Order: sequence, then C-alpha cells, then structure tokens
Amino acid sequence: MIFFERYVKEMAIRYPNGRRFTKKASTQNNKQNKELTYSNRGMTLEDDLNETNQYYLEKSKAVIHKKPTPIQIVQVDYPKRSAAVIKEAYFKQASTTDYNGVYKGHYLDFEAKETKNKTSFPLQNFHDHQIAHMKQVKNQNGIAFVILRFSLTDEIYLLDAAHLISFYDQKETSRKSIRKLDIEKYGVLIKIGYHPRIDYLQAVDSLYFNEQSTK
Amino acid sequence: MIFFERYVKEMAIRYPNGRRFTKKASTQNNKQNKELTYSNRGMTLEDDLNETNQYYLEKSKAVIHKKPTPIQIVQVDYPKRSAAVIKEAYFKQASTTDYNGVYKGHYLDFEAKETKNKTSFPLQNFHDHQIAHMKQVKNQNGIAFVILRFSLTDEIYLLDAAHLISFYDQKETSRKSIRKLDIEKYGVLIKIGYHPRIDYLQAVDSLYFNEQSTK
Repeated sequence: MIFFERYVKEMAIRYPNGRRFTKKASTQNNKQNKELTYSNRGMTLEDDLNETNQYYLEKSKAVIHKKPTPIQIVQVDYPKRSAAVIKEAYFKQASTTDYNGVYKGHYLDFEAKETKNKTSFPLQNFHDHQIAHMKQVKNQNGIAFVILRFSLTDEIYLLDAAHLISFYDQKETSRKSIRKLDIEKYGVLIKIGYHPRIDYLQAVDSLYFNEQSTK
Repeated sequence: MIFFERYVKEMAIRYPNGRRFTKKASTQNNKQNKELTYSNRGMTLEDDLNETNQYYLEKSKAVIHKKPTPIQIVQVDYPKRSAAVIKEAYFKQASTTDYNGVYKGHYLDFEAKETKNKTSFPLQNFHDHQIAHMKQVKNQNGIAFVILRFSLTDEIYLLDAAHLISFYDQKETSRKSIRKLDIEKYGVLIKIGYHPRIDYLQAVDSLYFNEQSTK
C-alpha cells in the first residue's frame, strides 16, 4: 500500500529534468514533520539522507549538506512590509551532484537515486553533467560515489563513482542498466538503522579508508 | 558613475536576508552576457568568482561551485506540454556558505562579501549560521575562508575563517567590524587579473600549502 502511494506520488509530479518534486522537502516545517513521522515507512531517500546528515553534523562526524534545487527566477514582487515573493520561476538542471561536504578533511561528493526494479539499476537515473562532475571530482582526488536504493527490498548500496562512470560510458554499446549482481560485487551494502537511518560513512570508511567506523 | 549605479542597484532590491537579488545571475543567458561585457567594471564579485571557478574547472585546477540560492516553494503549476512553473516561492536563509568544492583532494569552503567602507569590514555581512558552518568545516579539517572585497579600491583579500570567527565572536564586547589593518595583517591580498579574474587559489596555496601556485 505504501509502495502504491509512493508510485502514485512519483507519477503525479515531475520536474522537466525527470526529478521528482516533493513539496514536503521544500517547506520549513519539514523538520517538525520528520520528527513526528520518522518511523513511517513513507519517508523518501532524500528525507532519510537529510536526517542522516543532520545526525553527522550534530555528532561532529562530518559536514555534508544537500544542495538547494537550482531555480531560474524570472519575476519577483516586493510587497511593502513583507518578504519578497517569487511569482515566476523554473526548475533548472543542476550542474553538479546533490550532496557534498567534508569528512575528516576529505572532500565527499555523491548523488542518491532509487529504483523499483529488482535485479538492475537503470542508468537513465543519471545525466551526462552529473557523470562529468563525478569525473572532475575524482580528477581532483575527491571521494565521489552514488547511493543506490532498491526500494522494493529497501537495500541501499554505496558504489564508487569509478564503477558508475565505467558502466555509464558503455551504455551506448552495452547494457542500459547496472546489474544488481555487479552492484553487490563492486559496492558496499549500507546498514540501515534508526538514527542515523542510512549510515553511509561506515561504508565510506570500509571502502576508502579500509577501516571500521569509530562511533 | 559605475559605483553610483551599483549603489542604486544594491539599494533597490534586497533579499529579506539582506542578500542582493541579481537577476542576471539567475538567467541562463548569463554566460553569453558575461563574455560580451566582461571588461565592464560593473561586474559583481559573484560574477567574477563564477568566471574564476569556470576557469579552474576548464583547466582542471579545482572543482568549486556556487550553491544555488535556497528557495522555499509554495505553489507550482504544471501546464500541459510545457515546463513546470513556480508561481509562489520565497527566499530562504542559507544554512551554509555560498561556495565549496575540492582542490587537490582538499575540501574548500568559502563565503565572499564586499563593502564600500574604506578602512574596515562590517561584521554584519556575516550571519550566525555561516560562522557556525565555518567552525564545523574547520573542525572536520576542511579549508574555510572568506573573500573580502573593498569595492572602492577593488582590493580583494582572502582571510582564513579562524580570524573571522575570532573577530565575530568578540563583536558583542568589541568592534562591530574588522579593521582593514587586521585584514592586511592576517589575510592574503589576491592578485586581480583578466582571466581568471580573482585567482584565489594562488592565495590558498601560499596560505595553506606554503607554496607558489603551479600554473
């Protein structure tokens, strides 16, 4: 039932660039809602990651933020004695991934996507500019990866960007998706918890620093 | 005359959080305009930094982007056969600084501000949440600084966030601004050029890596 609701929600409202518009994520009451409904399984991957990043920030483990959605503003009204109102604006395509920040001095950069597929992850979830950005980040010795969620089984993997880039660059001649088998082989399964919900830094530690996370 | 125009523009339109609304920066024709008018001294500090970051990206020197302005979306229309239109939205206060990215594996994070004052830089240009964010970044061993421009003389300094934080934390009991003398003492003067316009990575090299930039 929850999956059906999520499906309907995804069908209903989409950005022109294919991204989902979630009104909840862009209201200032978000935090209060989150606290009330956190145990609810209708939470989105973005909500879960925001909660996780907030946890990391409070525990001084890392400083990772989601970037705001880029908006092209066309018209703004300035009513007397009240806040400026944007009356016409459009969603723009982002030129980078959605999340970045710093962890123990290292630059971390990632994109998070989910699929309802069971055995593969469609590459159409990613765009050329995001792949180009990940290449640039790796070229500067930054840590770049993707967080991939299989929503039907709630399995979440961290996959280094090098693998994604490799699959993406072959997509014209080879498969249009990454097999789940390959994600299991090259990626790291992220342990799902209560607080934080998606403890991806544990996977970062094991993949990039070859160590167990020190809580 | 140019300064007068800039002054008028600044007076006319301001975000509720005190930031200036520059329509140019949020239109997709920005790059074309920039190329036509680049020698024009009416460029804003933001334009100059965007141009510089684009230069760094193209030369594979660093991957630094300005974060989009955070917007709280209230109402979106979805006309048939055309792009979604945001009909009501408001400017939100950012929870971080404006710029971040990766340089040689290091996390870089900064805010850029300018003043028309001659001998001091008002601390009211910064907000509590930005100072808190810079503290968090330094705590994670990230590189955090501010770029401060004295617009009347077009002098631009890079000042490590530690100094800004120190002055900011004393502002209730001490001065409400940083003396230019102190910025000269603790900061690094950034060489202004044509392309890139504000070569702040040279200052980053000399301040944090104690070396000359290798072009």
